Amino acid sequence: MESPDFSKGLVPAIAQDAETGEVLMVAYMNDQAWEETLRTGRAVYWSRRRGLWRKGEESGNHQDVVEIRIDCDLDTILLRVHQHGGAACHTGFRSCFHRRRDGDGWQVVGEPLFDPAKVYGKESR
Amino acid sequence: MESPDFSKGLVPAIAQDAETGEVLMVAYMNDQAWEETLRTGRAVYWSRRRGLWRKGEESGNHQDVVEIRIDCDLDTILLRVHQHGGAACHTGFRSCFHRRRDGDGWQVVGEPLFDPAKVYGKESR
Repeated sequence: MESPDFSKGLVPAIAQDAETGEVLMVAYMNDQAWEETLRTGRAVYWSRRRGLWRKGEESGNHQDVVEIRIDCDLDTILLRVHQHGGAACHTGFRSCFHRRRDGDGWQVVGEPLFDPAKVYGKESR
Repeated sequence: MESPDFSKGLVPAIAQDAETGEVLMVAYMNDQAWEETLRTGRAVYWSRRRGLWRKGEESGNHQDVVEIRIDCDLDTILLRVHQHGGAACHTGFRSCFHRRRDGDGWQVVGEPLFDPAKVYGKESR
């Protein structure tokens, strides 16, 4: 069995909405996050700041893993997920990629689905 | 104008098919690749091995950029692209993510669209 190649460090993991194909976020995994994701069927990432990051543990916006893909070099993971609570981004938007290039700047696409101040404590994200 | 944050090094860039939403590949950009992508409207990446990487320069499978998104932390880029030649992956598959987790292993999804040996010289990819 080939596993993701963690020999060079953390591996990026894309979370994509399994129903719509929307790219929701990118985070990172180490072997521990990878194993727990496989075991539990929920997306678990590794954050340099806070360590093992069980996505949605605080906000409730966890991600059920529908399908896992790996790229040709075994160094990027693609999770197709069911996003609970509607929003993956800590800003309250459905996707972390809610800004679109427009001329020399960025245009916000869509509306936030929740108020981060009501969901998270001030020290966490 | 906020640009991607290259202060911590290379930034991952996801190429997503603009028509189907399929995630095609992930590569990396530095500021030079970013500026050339903006200027030319074609995806340009940075490869540690070969430097500035104008995707498709050798294979013809270049990517016209339809839309650019940036994530909330300004450290991941999402390109929605039109993929020329049908395949983004150097293996000949449409997507680099052509392996799906199946039990303890991986199952190949789909078929290669070209024979890499006929498209690339032996030293390049």
